[in-house]
Amino acid sequence: MPRAVVLLSGGLDSATALAVAKSQGFEVFALSADYGQRHRVELERAAAVAAALGAAEHRTVRLDLRAIGGSALTADLAVPKDRSAEDMSHGVPVTYVPARNTILLGLALGYAETVGAFDLFIGANVLDYSGYPDCRPEFLSAFERLANLATKAATEGAGRFRVHSPLLKLTKAEIIREGVRLGVDYALTLSCYDPDPEGRACGRCDSCQLRRKGFAEAGAPDPTAYQ
Amino acid sequence: MPRAVVLLSGGLDSATALAVAKSQGFEVFALSADYGQRHRVELERAAAVAAALGAAEHRTVRLDLRAIGGSALTADLAVPKDRSAEDMSHGVPVTYVPARNTILLGLALGYAETVGAFDLFIGANVLDYSGYPDCRPEFLSAFERLANLATKAATEGAGRFRVHSPLLKLTKAEIIREGVRLGVDYALTLSCYDPDPEGRACGRCDSCQLRRKGFAEAGAPDPTAYQ
Repeated sequence: MPRAVVLLSGGLDSATALAVAKSQGFEVFALSADYGQRHRVELERAAAVAAALGAAEHRTVRLDLRAIGGSALTADLAVPKDRSAEDMSHGVPVTYVPARNTILLGLALGYAETVGAFDLFIGANVLDYSGYPDCRPEFLSAFERLANLATKAATEGAGRFRVHSPLLKLTKAEIIREGVRLGVDYALTLSCYDPDPEGRACGRCDSCQLRRKGFAEAGAPDPTAYQ
Repeated sequence: MPRAVVLLSGGLDSATALAVAKSQGFEVFALSADYGQRHRVELERAAAVAAALGAAEHRTVRLDLRAIGGSALTADLAVPKDRSAEDMSHGVPVTYVPARNTILLGLALGYAETVGAFDLFIGANVLDYSGYPDCRPEFLSAFERLANLATKAATEGAGRFRVHSPLLKLTKAEIIREGVRLGVDYALTLSCYDPDPEGRACGRCDSCQLRRKGFAEAGAPDPTAYQ
């Protein structure tokens, strides 16, 4: 069975990406990063999701992005709340983490090379992406190209890396419907950027708003525990 | 004064790259990674080098690549010793760390974006590179392209990222001569992959052999403390 590395944050999108990878016949090696995010409780959710969806392995890499800062997720900046759909639709928000997906895909690439995988899955999305440049298809293609120049595995001809972003052009509602079809238990996932210590969602950050709207539009019950 | 981020390992090459960045008029922000390398003593050397060469700032990011493994530098594999020049000249050695330069340049990119720099310096070298795929010019060009798609700073038009590798085509002797000219104190640097607890070099790993030969060919005194 071919192996794939799936970047797993513990949120809704990456849980769905993992389920898609499984459904395509991959043995899944899930990778999470403890990068100093304020919503660290998502890491426990990632472990629960990996177990529930039958990942062969789940590793968490510690990586202190607070040493770099520059984001509301890793520095002492406030997470924006109650923004309108209009506000969310343009500009890069302060929850952008400088170079995050470059770094996370780099870690996924290293992990893939170690376990003999050539397929990397990321739950990136351009519709609900809230303005992050490193979720766009041109970024993902550029990373795939880089991966095939960066590694021993590719340069020695053992295979070619592929970056899969199966959610790239889906709406949040479409993602949720696909996940429900594939058996994802969304009660295990956490999307909130600013949960309370018990892991309950704020319901008001961009990520909570997009998630809540997605369940409504999908006509699926929202299992999220809100504050 | 324009700002540059310099990846600084504490070794000979990156110390020289820092000196080159300074000589080109950049205010230098040095970045090191504590990635679980067995030669962690190099991090103290990096701090000393940054101070001696007048870096404006020096940060160290903790990043546990042992969670990924796959290299003699981060897992319990032996560092090769006493290899011939012939053996060193082909193939990727076990000291290759999967995706290391992708990850390190990703961190440099995030740091650059945070401090408003658009110039990244890396001491990569193709001649003495010992077979690492992620030191080649095509890899570095692909990363530069990626950087300009990955970031808020570039996509919003604040500037364009450039990856500088001023040592790329120099021999070790040429690097040393350039560093001596620019006032690098190589006694502060450590190149060895397997130093003893006092930070003395083994003299026998690929990195030690290339360094020793470089000083001899440069006609410069070798200030390295060997075991």
